[in-house]
Amino acid sequence: MEIKNKEIVSAAKPSADQLALLKGKDILSAAQFTKEELDLIMETAAYYEKKVKDGEVLKDMEGKVMASLFFEPSTRTRLSFETAMSRLGGSVITVAESAKVQTSSTAKGETLYDSIRVIDLYADVIVVRSPQKGAADEAALAAENPVLNSGDGAGEHPTQALLDIYTILKERGDLKGLTVTLLGDLKHGRTVHSLIRLLSHFGCHIILVAPEKLRMPAEIVADVEKLGVDVKQTDNLSEAAAVSDVLYVTRIQKERFENEAEYDLVKNDFIVESELLKTAKEGIVIMHPLPRVNEITVDVDDYAGAAYFRQAGNGVPVRMALLALVKGCVR
Amino acid sequence: MEIKNKEIVSAAKPSADQLALLKGKDILSAAQFTKEELDLIMETAAYYEKKVKDGEVLKDMEGKVMASLFFEPSTRTRLSFETAMSRLGGSVITVAESAKVQTSSTAKGETLYDSIRVIDLYADVIVVRSPQKGAADEAALAAENPVLNSGDGAGEHPTQALLDIYTILKERGDLKGLTVTLLGDLKHGRTVHSLIRLLSHFGCHIILVAPEKLRMPAEIVADVEKLGVDVKQTDNLSEAAAVSDVLYVTRIQKERFENEAEYDLVKNDFIVESELLKTAKEGIVIMHPLPRVNEITVDVDDYAGAAYFRQAGNGVPVRMALLALVKGCVR
Amino acid sequence: MEIKNKEIVSAAKPSADQLALLKGKDILSAAQFTKEELDLIMETAAYYEKKVKDGEVLKDMEGKVMASLFFEPSTRTRLSFETAMSRLGGSVITVAESAKVQTSSTAKGETLYDSIRVIDLYADVIVVRSPQKGAADEAALAAENPVLNSGDGAGEHPTQALLDIYTILKERGDLKGLTVTLLGDLKHGRTVHSLIRLLSHFGCHIILVAPEKLRMPAEIVADVEKLGVDVKQTDNLSEAAAVSDVLYVTRIQKERFENEAEYDLVKNDFIVESELLKTAKEGIVIMHPLPRVNEITVDVDDYAGAAYFRQAGNGVPVRMALLALVKGCVR
Repeated sequence: MEIKNKEIVSAAKPSADQLALLKGKDILSAAQFTKEELDLIMETAAYYEKKVKDGEVLKDMEGKVMASLFFEPSTRTRLSFETAMSRLGGSVITVAESAKVQTSSTAKGETLYDSIRVIDLYADVIVVRSPQKGAADEAALAAENPVLNSGDGAGEHPTQALLDIYTILKERGDLKGLTVTLLGDLKHGRTVHSLIRLLSHFGCHIILVAPEKLRMPAEIVADVEKLGVDVKQTDNLSEAAAVSDVLYVTRIQKERFENEAEYDLVKNDFIVESELLKTAKEGIVIMHPLPRVNEITVDVDDYAGAAYFRQAGNGVPVRMALLALVKGCVR
Repeated sequence: MEIKNKEIVSAAKPSADQLALLKGKDILSAAQFTKEELDLIMETAAYYEKKVKDGEVLKDMEGKVMASLFFEPSTRTRLSFETAMSRLGGSVITVAESAKVQTSSTAKGETLYDSIRVIDLYADVIVVRSPQKGAADEAALAAENPVLNSGDGAGEHPTQALLDIYTILKERGDLKGLTVTLLGDLKHGRTVHSLIRLLSHFGCHIILVAPEKLRMPAEIVADVEKLGVDVKQTDNLSEAAAVSDVLYVTRIQKERFENEAEYDLVKNDFIVESELLKTAKEGIVIMHPLPRVNEITVDVDDYAGAAYFRQAGNGVPVRMALLALVKGCVR
Repeated sequence: MEIKNKEIVSAAKPSADQLALLKGKDILSAAQFTKEELDLIMETAAYYEKKVKDGEVLKDMEGKVMASLFFEPSTRTRLSFETAMSRLGGSVITVAESAKVQTSSTAKGETLYDSIRVIDLYADVIVVRSPQKGAADEAALAAENPVLNSGDGAGEHPTQALLDIYTILKERGDLKGLTVTLLGDLKHGRTVHSLIRLLSHFGCHIILVAPEKLRMPAEIVADVEKLGVDVKQTDNLSEAAAVSDVLYVTRIQKERFENEAEYDLVKNDFIVESELLKTAKEGIVIMHPLPRVNEITVDVDDYAGAAYFRQAGNGVPVRMALLALVKGCVR
């Protein structure tokens, strides 16, 4: 299956009116976006993806500095943001704390607020990852420059959800009328919580596949249904796969179960292997936010619709779009 | 209170004669500067600050590489230097050791001398932070390229003192005739040791406020008085604040006292809170090298003269000036 | 002794035919190169070294991104590669794991294959250092972009061997007919294993000096002799030095011996000090891959033929050449 790039993901430069939509804004939550803003982000991402593919040397962020503040490790997301800023011709300053090492400012007892107040005077745009829910909101209060939340503990990871939408649009050309299945630990996964909210803008059907204990929180389902979205819940993966255009896989962690026996009972019911693809809907797109452990077996990698690596790659144009849009620097 | 930018901090490009003053030099100690050199640094910082504010894309250090060697963590100083180099159009290579992790070269038993001999062949300018006093001097001996000391243990932190001076000049327009009070642990603080030496060039009056045990070393006071500077010492903060134009706050660490009781006796006498501002001289500028813990309460942040965040931000133009001056690259 | 830059190390820009030789290739092993490719790398390195010395601002890799993935610490090699990419006008994204800290992706159980599949979609060229032998080969299988092995445990370190050759050519003008002595732990040292294979292309004589227990593996010696290279083995350093044009020193680790007494017996026989230089061949070039501990005493540093720091500096132009050649970006 070839990667598509249909009308909805136009690669044309957005209009001046569109470009005003996100200028100066923070990117904190998947819940913040209007459909118009989502379309703008998707189009701008496609615009930049084409330019990079064509080998253009971009200067949209030349002379500008992005602070890449990762107070917990997330190599993939950090490198994706830093690549995005580099591709736009900008510079990066990095704090990449390792899991076992305290930040130097934390070690000295400084608050996040004070840290961000200062870094806001160095950089033009701030990317924050933190194990603390609400950290990005706190950073946004401290900073005059735009703050992009790249994961705040159990909170949000909006740029992941945006690249997920971008990936579906690229893989399928459109989202309207598609059936998208979310699989795995839907109770704790911030990724699927953010994603289902974004999906609700695009007129698709949603199936939720999870062990009973790890279902999507009822209030999120209710919110989405209120918007007129058709949501089905089941624990039968193969039935869902048989009618799905997109299967979005996330991990089920052993630690979520009371004992290993309980985990062993269900674990094999939610693994995606090439056997499953035989009865799945033709052309089904397999996605995963990565890293995967064993929830998608490696024999699936060769399947044309296995989109999870392309999906990760899509993080770069989507983050280029976000950086340039919040700074009003799309040229 | 608005930030001022008067004649002393001219934003004009320095003359060719001036620019020759620091070319090829190391920046190791606050004691090394003539008044002429200090003026040059201040003017060049103002020159760059204006250019950055105007959105100019600078290429003064294009093609050049700065080695940012932080053998102990100091996120603020590191990011400030790296931002400065980026804003000048240059590139950065970074060693950012965390507090609990040995450097890879140290782990292999290599001397600082050998490390710097090598890095001197990679980079065009070297910024060194180390927990060892004298490390920057040792690095300067090993390197042919300019070395900038960004903190060597109990030794010096000259670029901090320079940005402190720049901040006072910006906040007040001039230093001549002002009364500047230094507060806190004046015995151990390398920041205030460097700063008082620089202040002695500018014709201001100095008040030193500290608990008796943590007074400024007598030989430093004597050195400064020999230069004709008027220095008063006291442990009464509010009396000092009542006559001060600038109050420079530093932390008093509990560990400096023999026991907690002794610390508790004095700690509240040296905390800056909004209550103090009521009896302080009108327009008093509050500064702090950051990070602060509780020595300035957060209610002070809203006071117009609370300059500590602006002060941190001033690190960027001052370090831009230093990098460009030692490389002779001011365009 | 002046650094030479004779015909073999021409600084002319390679021809289009030459430039096609390495485009799109991985750099994984010293054994992969033809003499033609080695000549190309040496010439391109000299070409770039001259440009940097002349202060040219290069744009050969402008808009391109290098992933600098150091899954074990190696500050020197990492900074050398990152400087090289910066000097070419490109950008760098870095993973620099400290020795005691697991990678975030490893912590989450991700395979190197998955990590590289993703990073390959961010960056244009990938530099990998790993404690695992074979890691670079695995990375090369996962990536479509060129992978440069910068050390894979007990495996290879081809870019070190290339800069070693470049250094000899620069120091001596040619390698043909020279006598090159390799000294130290020749059994375990990946550096000398890679180097001896490259030397075999250049028509020089080789002497191997090692304690009996740490001799070069017989199969490597046999391979090289098959190519017609004259190889002598001895444990007498001063006899070897008396007839050598180049002495390449590596460390002998105490841990390689069964007990300290056994180590003490031999350790002094393999230390290079200025005393040795008195009976060594005139003009002998002393090299070392660094870091050194005590195997070359510091009194040797002042000797004009002590080339080990220059050798480290040569890593930059050689790596510039490799990066630009594998991307076909030499302008």
